[in-house]
Amino acid sequence: LKGGAAAPVADPYANEPQRLPALIVRSQKPMNSETPMELLAASIVTPNELFYVRNHLPVPQVDPAAYRLRIEGEGVRSLELSLEELKTKFKRHTITATLQCTGNRRNEFNRTGRVVKGLEWEGGSISTAVFTGVRLRDVLLAAGLEDDDPEVQHIQFEGLDADMAGATYGASIEVDKAMSPHGDVLLAYEMNSAPLPADHGFPLRAVVPGVAGCRSVKWLGKIVASSEESHSFWQRRDYKAFGPNTDWDNVDWDAAPAIQAMPVTSQICEPAVGAVVEDDEVTIKGYAWSGGGQGIIRVDVSADGGKTWHNAELQKVPQKRGRGWAWALWQATIPLPKGFTGQLELVCKATDENYNTQPENAAPIWNLRGVNCNSWHRVPVTVQ
Amino acid sequence: LKGGAAAPVADPYANEPQRLPALIVRSQKPMNSETPMELLAASIVTPNELFYVRNHLPVPQVDPAAYRLRIEGEGVRSLELSLEELKTKFKRHTITATLQCTGNRRNEFNRTGRVVKGLEWEGGSISTAVFTGVRLRDVLLAAGLEDDDPEVQHIQFEGLDADMAGATYGASIEVDKAMSPHGDVLLAYEMNSAPLPADHGFPLRAVVPGVAGCRSVKWLGKIVASSEESHSFWQRRDYKAFGPNTDWDNVDWDAAPAIQAMPVTSQICEPAVGAVVEDDEVTIKGYAWSGGGQGIIRVDVSADGGKTWHNAELQKVPQKRGRGWAWALWQATIPLPKGFTGQLELVCKATDENYNTQPENAAPIWNLRGVNCNSWHRVPVTVQ
Ligand SMILES: [Mo]
Ligand SMILES: [Mo]
Repeated sequence: LKGGAAAPVADPYANEPQRLPALIVRSQKPMNSETPMELLAASIVTPNELFYVRNHLPVPQVDPAAYRLRIEGEGVRSLELSLEELKTKFKRHTITATLQCTGNRRNEFNRTGRVVKGLEWEGGSISTAVFTGVRLRDVLLAAGLEDDDPEVQHIQFEGLDADMAGATYGASIEVDKAMSPHGDVLLAYEMNSAPLPADHGFPLRAVVPGVAGCRSVKWLGKIVASSEESHSFWQRRDYKAFGPNTDWDNVDWDAAPAIQAMPVTSQICEPAVGAVVEDDEVTIKGYAWSGGGQGIIRVDVSADGGKTWHNAELQKVPQKRGRGWAWALWQATIPLPKGFTGQLELVCKATDENYNTQPENAAPIWNLRGVNCNSWHRVPVTVQ
Repeated sequence: LKGGAAAPVADPYANEPQRLPALIVRSQKPMNSETPMELLAASIVTPNELFYVRNHLPVPQVDPAAYRLRIEGEGVRSLELSLEELKTKFKRHTITATLQCTGNRRNEFNRTGRVVKGLEWEGGSISTAVFTGVRLRDVLLAAGLEDDDPEVQHIQFEGLDADMAGATYGASIEVDKAMSPHGDVLLAYEMNSAPLPADHGFPLRAVVPGVAGCRSVKWLGKIVASSEESHSFWQRRDYKAFGPNTDWDNVDWDAAPAIQAMPVTSQICEPAVGAVVEDDEVTIKGYAWSGGGQGIIRVDVSADGGKTWHNAELQKVPQKRGRGWAWALWQATIPLPKGFTGQLELVCKATDENYNTQPENAAPIWNLRGVNCNSWHRVPVTVQ
């Protein structure tokens, strides 16, 4: 090579898996794509091929026979476990859980007039699957971790996905969530009864139900028990929210806690924005979800911008109170004002088991990274 | 007695304890009184004499020497425990917890133009104390209850307070909350280092931190482990919330879950509604709290009705994430528009660890019983 030019580097994205064209791509490298609204509302469990994809780095290629999960850190004996050992030495456990990107619905912040940084998600970076694997608690107990060990406050996850310099994706969760017998945190090797797809963490991922998707680390390589949170960029300098008065010039990242459980949210999946309604009633469909295991107890819908409300009918999977990891789908057919033609605003808002509900507008919850957008979802339609 | 007239019955309220005149009485018989705003904001721990009083029935007179707590039901051996046994056979445990009536701030619903039924609370039916006693979990374990016994889903509490027919106050909580090693549910015999006052359950009460005050049953007489919720009126036909479209003519009480953990809320304690501000800045003080153990991470305040926001400074007691049982007090000094005179609206809203936040207005969360009022607190003041 002449003149000291660098050798051409092989494209780290050369081995990405195939994806369905139905997914709406927000970035190609890394792949980030959301599920179309009408497909989300079609079934409580999202088919694997339609599950939203949120990758931070190239998809790593992992040989399942050579794969080892490493457990290390404070309060534990270092352990290495093969996939076979995980599957045979620990009890199999299954949960139905919704995962959601903290940036889901981010574009609604952009439409307030104050632009935020991040992938321009509409409401489709959320999906639900039946995950099967072993409990993180069982694996940590096998490594010798004791309940309420005062040295251990966080469980860190390290992915096998890495940048060109070898730095890997990482995140951590609270040890209380990891160790709670009712926390249901999994190390999952199956998704909807199939091996994990490459885009979703093959051969093993964390599934932290009720918590922001970014903590459910995919292609899981290492688990570290620690007194400290993960030192990753994504744990400490991203995936936090501030008040609307905080912007890039005055943000103190240490002043807010890392997002773990996410707030209650809901979305109208049908009709679409700008749809034409030619009837004296309208059928509205959507999803509703809350973090922290808080199941959805009610969805209210309005055809007059929120002045009057109707109850939607909920479709749910059976879940115990406090362990409501999966979303509810909902549907309502509501009357339109007699003889009305012109534009109407359809609105939905959800209430969870703690009776938390959604704020009305996005502007008062605007935040520089555009996360946790959970204001009332509003869809303008035209009645003819 | 002539003409079959009933004998005069002794006033069941003849033996009520003395109370401070500082408390704002909302009903005399039973006693229901709230703490004045400026006293609430004065200290994180509310003095016993100033703690809001929410009684459903006359205060019972209990002889502590003769007192026995009875434990019975499914999955347990029946037990009777004296106060002395509770204090000596079980580990002493202390928590700082905020209790709040589900009806706190109810009057804000009345001011939407649609009247609700219930005590006309402003924002003072909330207080914080240091409670000491034994863990309910330890007592249930001593009675033989096993973790995850599938027969037991609820722990019912029965008070010693009764109506003229002998029917007692009752409520229940979820067994998962009762048995969680991190749930911190107490059977408390001390409040702020003194024996429980008569108005607060002497000699023993349940303290269910993070949960609506009505489940922290006072003058506790009996604990029942059960597959069913308490059959009390207050559990099944009260202390639930519905959508704004549900009213007394169409309510189905079984369609909503009993309120347990309450949603995030906050209140401006100073300045008072209608205060006159004679400066170019204003100092605002208040409280913020969220149920379910979700600590408060931020309070935003506004002097322009919510168009622009400032961060308040928080005062908190040390609490682990997920076990944030006590409120935060907060304070902010914020500038007023230069040269402005006239009326301004001060506003506060809080965000909790799950990043849940408060809805903007009361009308969209209006409900027939007027519970869970947690919209932005708004205080009009006059600037001179
Ligand atoms: Mo995310
Ligand atoms: Mo209450």
